[in-house]
Amino acid sequence: MTTSHRIIIDTDPGQDDAVAILLALGSPEIEVLGITAVAGNVPLRLTEKNARKICELAGRPETRVYAGAVRPLVRPLVTAEAVHGKTGLNGPDLPEPKMRLCDGHAVDFIVETLMAEEAGTVTLCPLGPLTNIALALIREPRIAPRIRQIVLMGGGFFEGGNTTPAAEFNIYVDPHAADIVFRSGVPIVMMPLDVTHKALTTGRRIAAFRDLGTRVGVATAEMLEFFERFDEAKYGTDGGPLHDPCVIAWLLKPDLFSGRECNVSVEIASELTMGMTVVDWWGVTKRPKNAMVMRDIDADGFFALLVERIGSL
Amino acid sequence: MTTSHRIIIDTDPGQDDAVAILLALGSPEIEVLGITAVAGNVPLRLTEKNARKICELAGRPETRVYAGAVRPLVRPLVTAEAVHGKTGLNGPDLPEPKMRLCDGHAVDFIVETLMAEEAGTVTLCPLGPLTNIALALIREPRIAPRIRQIVLMGGGFFEGGNTTPAAEFNIYVDPHAADIVFRSGVPIVMMPLDVTHKALTTGRRIAAFRDLGTRVGVATAEMLEFFERFDEAKYGTDGGPLHDPCVIAWLLKPDLFSGRECNVSVEIASELTMGMTVVDWWGVTKRPKNAMVMRDIDADGFFALLVERIGSL
Amino acid sequence: MTTSHRIIIDTDPGQDDAVAILLALGSPEIEVLGITAVAGNVPLRLTEKNARKICELAGRPETRVYAGAVRPLVRPLVTAEAVHGKTGLNGPDLPEPKMRLCDGHAVDFIVETLMAEEAGTVTLCPLGPLTNIALALIREPRIAPRIRQIVLMGGGFFEGGNTTPAAEFNIYVDPHAADIVFRSGVPIVMMPLDVTHKALTTGRRIAAFRDLGTRVGVATAEMLEFFERFDEAKYGTDGGPLHDPCVIAWLLKPDLFSGRECNVSVEIASELTMGMTVVDWWGVTKRPKNAMVMRDIDADGFFALLVERIGSL
Amino acid sequence: MTTSHRIIIDTDPGQDDAVAILLALGSPEIEVLGITAVAGNVPLRLTEKNARKICELAGRPETRVYAGAVRPLVRPLVTAEAVHGKTGLNGPDLPEPKMRLCDGHAVDFIVETLMAEEAGTVTLCPLGPLTNIALALIREPRIAPRIRQIVLMGGGFFEGGNTTPAAEFNIYVDPHAADIVFRSGVPIVMMPLDVTHKALTTGRRIAAFRDLGTRVGVATAEMLEFFERFDEAKYGTDGGPLHDPCVIAWLLKPDLFSGRECNVSVEIASELTMGMTVVDWWGVTKRPKNAMVMRDIDADGFFALLVERIGSL
Repeated sequence: MTTSHRIIIDTDPGQDDAVAILLALGSPEIEVLGITAVAGNVPLRLTEKNARKICELAGRPETRVYAGAVRPLVRPLVTAEAVHGKTGLNGPDLPEPKMRLCDGHAVDFIVETLMAEEAGTVTLCPLGPLTNIALALIREPRIAPRIRQIVLMGGGFFEGGNTTPAAEFNIYVDPHAADIVFRSGVPIVMMPLDVTHKALTTGRRIAAFRDLGTRVGVATAEMLEFFERFDEAKYGTDGGPLHDPCVIAWLLKPDLFSGRECNVSVEIASELTMGMTVVDWWGVTKRPKNAMVMRDIDADGFFALLVERIGSL
Repeated sequence: MTTSHRIIIDTDPGQDDAVAILLALGSPEIEVLGITAVAGNVPLRLTEKNARKICELAGRPETRVYAGAVRPLVRPLVTAEAVHGKTGLNGPDLPEPKMRLCDGHAVDFIVETLMAEEAGTVTLCPLGPLTNIALALIREPRIAPRIRQIVLMGGGFFEGGNTTPAAEFNIYVDPHAADIVFRSGVPIVMMPLDVTHKALTTGRRIAAFRDLGTRVGVATAEMLEFFERFDEAKYGTDGGPLHDPCVIAWLLKPDLFSGRECNVSVEIASELTMGMTVVDWWGVTKRPKNAMVMRDIDADGFFALLVERIGSL
Repeated sequence: MTTSHRIIIDTDPGQDDAVAILLALGSPEIEVLGITAVAGNVPLRLTEKNARKICELAGRPETRVYAGAVRPLVRPLVTAEAVHGKTGLNGPDLPEPKMRLCDGHAVDFIVETLMAEEAGTVTLCPLGPLTNIALALIREPRIAPRIRQIVLMGGGFFEGGNTTPAAEFNIYVDPHAADIVFRSGVPIVMMPLDVTHKALTTGRRIAAFRDLGTRVGVATAEMLEFFERFDEAKYGTDGGPLHDPCVIAWLLKPDLFSGRECNVSVEIASELTMGMTVVDWWGVTKRPKNAMVMRDIDADGFFALLVERIGSL
Repeated sequence: MTTSHRIIIDTDPGQDDAVAILLALGSPEIEVLGITAVAGNVPLRLTEKNARKICELAGRPETRVYAGAVRPLVRPLVTAEAVHGKTGLNGPDLPEPKMRLCDGHAVDFIVETLMAEEAGTVTLCPLGPLTNIALALIREPRIAPRIRQIVLMGGGFFEGGNTTPAAEFNIYVDPHAADIVFRSGVPIVMMPLDVTHKALTTGRRIAAFRDLGTRVGVATAEMLEFFERFDEAKYGTDGGPLHDPCVIAWLLKPDLFSGRECNVSVEIASELTMGMTVVDWWGVTKRPKNAMVMRDIDADGFFALLVERIGSL
């Protein structure tokens, strides 16, 4: 099978980020050029370490992992230990990583990769706050037309937010970065809460990972069992929303998702709605379309894909 | 049957306002102390006339109708002729009203009624922008603890807005008034788009009004047929959302609706999200609960109630 | 002498408001159609009483005094007892007023007067927050083209603010009202802090009032001595800024003042700069000119006028 | 003479930036570790070239010059060719520079220098938008406590703005960067328009540069003659405000300036006041003091210092 996607994963693991990374590493259609860590779910020193732990869990210690932004552009960092646990990766007992962090700053890696690779061949897959991506666009605006597309998890609209009533965590943490990204002109595919809240880690679905019987499968099950506690308690659902793997799954099987080209504008002026992604789903404004906003998912197909690929690791 | 509710209807008819008025006038449990018109769907000179037309259609020309605010508090008036037609009441051919507008300003009528009647006995039912209600609260803050409750149609959350991506029409037109009302301390029951978009005027439901065979029934059917065009075209639904009658229906049969006590805060700082009702449905902020926000409706029960009561006129 | 100005004074006395009222009542060129009180420096129940005290002090108990808005439009009331004392009129020992408050609401008086009098003949002189004026414009927009002009004390620009670093008290207390007034299309003359901070109540100037030897002169001296404490302590000046009488003085001797036609826009979106009057003094925006903004004053001429006219009472 | 100040000049030349650079290079008390260019008065490709032209004019081609940010963090770039001319350095006929731009990004140079040098020994002197400085603080927050101080030209308060009525150019161009810098905890000395508008390039003062008879003196005179056109026309003054050299002059002779420790907060929420530096000069808020805000200057002493030092080149 030929590689269809050459990607950089920008991430703040987080259990759902971890599953997204596993899905990418387990998929032959995807070449992971590097993983860039950002502060988000937990501080940077944990997210970069967690990224390395997951690469080792996947048996891919050669993956390049870079550390990026320690803090959002303008606002102070907000983290989400209540969801992800103190380490950001609570659940399984993963060993300290042996693989080294790559030298250099994540933002430089992103810029240099995009300037070195053929234009239009590299996809960015942000799974956390968009700080690194925005910093790359500020540092070298010429990367914008060279990015194939940005497929990101973030925002929400008809679902509201999950951090404030109006804002989803990734966008809320760095709304200015999100504003920069959504106004960058780069083609964007957005996986908002509207999609991810339909991808619930039910007991049966988690069992399918455990039943793989592999070390990766069991660790995935353990991560998801820890991760779902928070949303199950909040929403009273069976299972928690498996946000970030939707990004990678869309690269592999876009037909699992459906959505619409819309304008997405990010609120950065008002504290009440700070970080809200205002999606013009019904086309009532004259603002230009700047993102393919997904709204629905074939959740069973999505989990089947996850089990298949994670089972291959 | 004893009267259970003594109400003032504040309204900008509007076909759905008209049906709400008919429902109130057709219900023996409700005493309509007066109808106060406000600029909104169409300018005030039309809304006050439309209110009178509907009272006459209902055979209740003795109803007191007052004209109120010509414009919103701070922002310029926005109207919605695209939805309601040039007159605000397009559809049936209703004669010019013969009944007179009452002397005096609607805001004074609201204040005087609330100060004259026993505290806790009068309910306000705003169906349009909240300008008149806010002006009454500014003019005489002592009315606040005397209002039994405010049952209003306005806002939206998981449905987004219907005027901008974030804001519903009534709140968008006068967000400052809405901010004043939601911070007034008066008990509020809110019927947002989340409810009203589930109360669709399907062909079968409209036919039930026409089949009443009465003048009022036929006129109702004609109003709804005109009214539903806009939303059917926009949303691709069978029927349009019958917003305002939800307010009156809740007084009559609260069990038709379900919702939750939440904080509702109105965006007045940012143009992007201006007039959004930020509903803390999941209780993630520390902001105090200030409204019973409805989210679901028994739509069949609702339309059955409408047909029964409008059939009695 | 024929009357040149027929005015309504809208006011929240306040010692400097009191001196402005005395100046108007002591000037034959001015006919005071009525005084409308508003909440501001102190709550309404004190400002309306203080207005009556001053009318009686001036020997003009027949002056019509009306009570208006108890609170600003949107924001909670902020008062300034630190400046004006607990009563708003600390300093002299003035008796409780015997004259009655007129029946009816100040806003109605403003509207009815403007609709009854010949268009273009009545000047509004707001000395406090612009709540009453804005409410009149909302209640009856047709008054706007009938107002001769609005001469107001409020705002500041090159002086900054006196309540927050960016905002002057009158505008800060009700920025939404100010926004309505400055966008009303009515000709406006604005006396900002830039002027009033040049009209200082030095010892010599206060002595001139006391030296009048009249009851009004002595009371004026006592008011000013109390009033200047706050600003003397804050700014280290000899004397405090005598804000409100500038409005009346301009009617009498406009040559005492110099300024420029500018656009003035009021900040209502950001808490940091809330209530700032953004004056486009240098004409760098394309916003239309909507106010004659005064910047300089002949302070000696101003105080000479004050002493002369207050001496006549 | 021992070096008292080791500085990095961050700049967007600009004639006044150029004079500031000449002042620094002509002063033995100052060691210029490097010059970092930023987009501002003109685009980056011109500002970095202009910086090199000035180093060569000063006979200091060994000075390290780095190119930095091409664009502000969040907002689109605004430039000021109307003031500075098409090249940013209109006036003298300066040759194309032969010295090379240093490899690497200005932000990296700032970070690496601060991390390599002894903590507390390096002063940053930003003369343009604060983009590079903010990016350095985001990239490596550990530099904050290592910076001796930031002495910057920017903002204005009692003078208002020079780009919008409320905002000065440097802060307006990148208000988010300014917000980051003013909240960084680094000691700040701020030279606002309140100072620089008192440092006017009168005919006599420009003549003193020309009378030096040196190539640098004549070029300085030519730059200032071009530069002053815009402000002379706008303000009707004799001479234009010589903004940026105030920063370097303060390092050399702080007694030329007087000011006060205040809180400075940057407006980033409202378009009307975007980029305003809200200076709490009178201490009316509880916000912590974060800058020494200068308000007065001994302009004759300042120009004497300039002539002396530029005469030495």
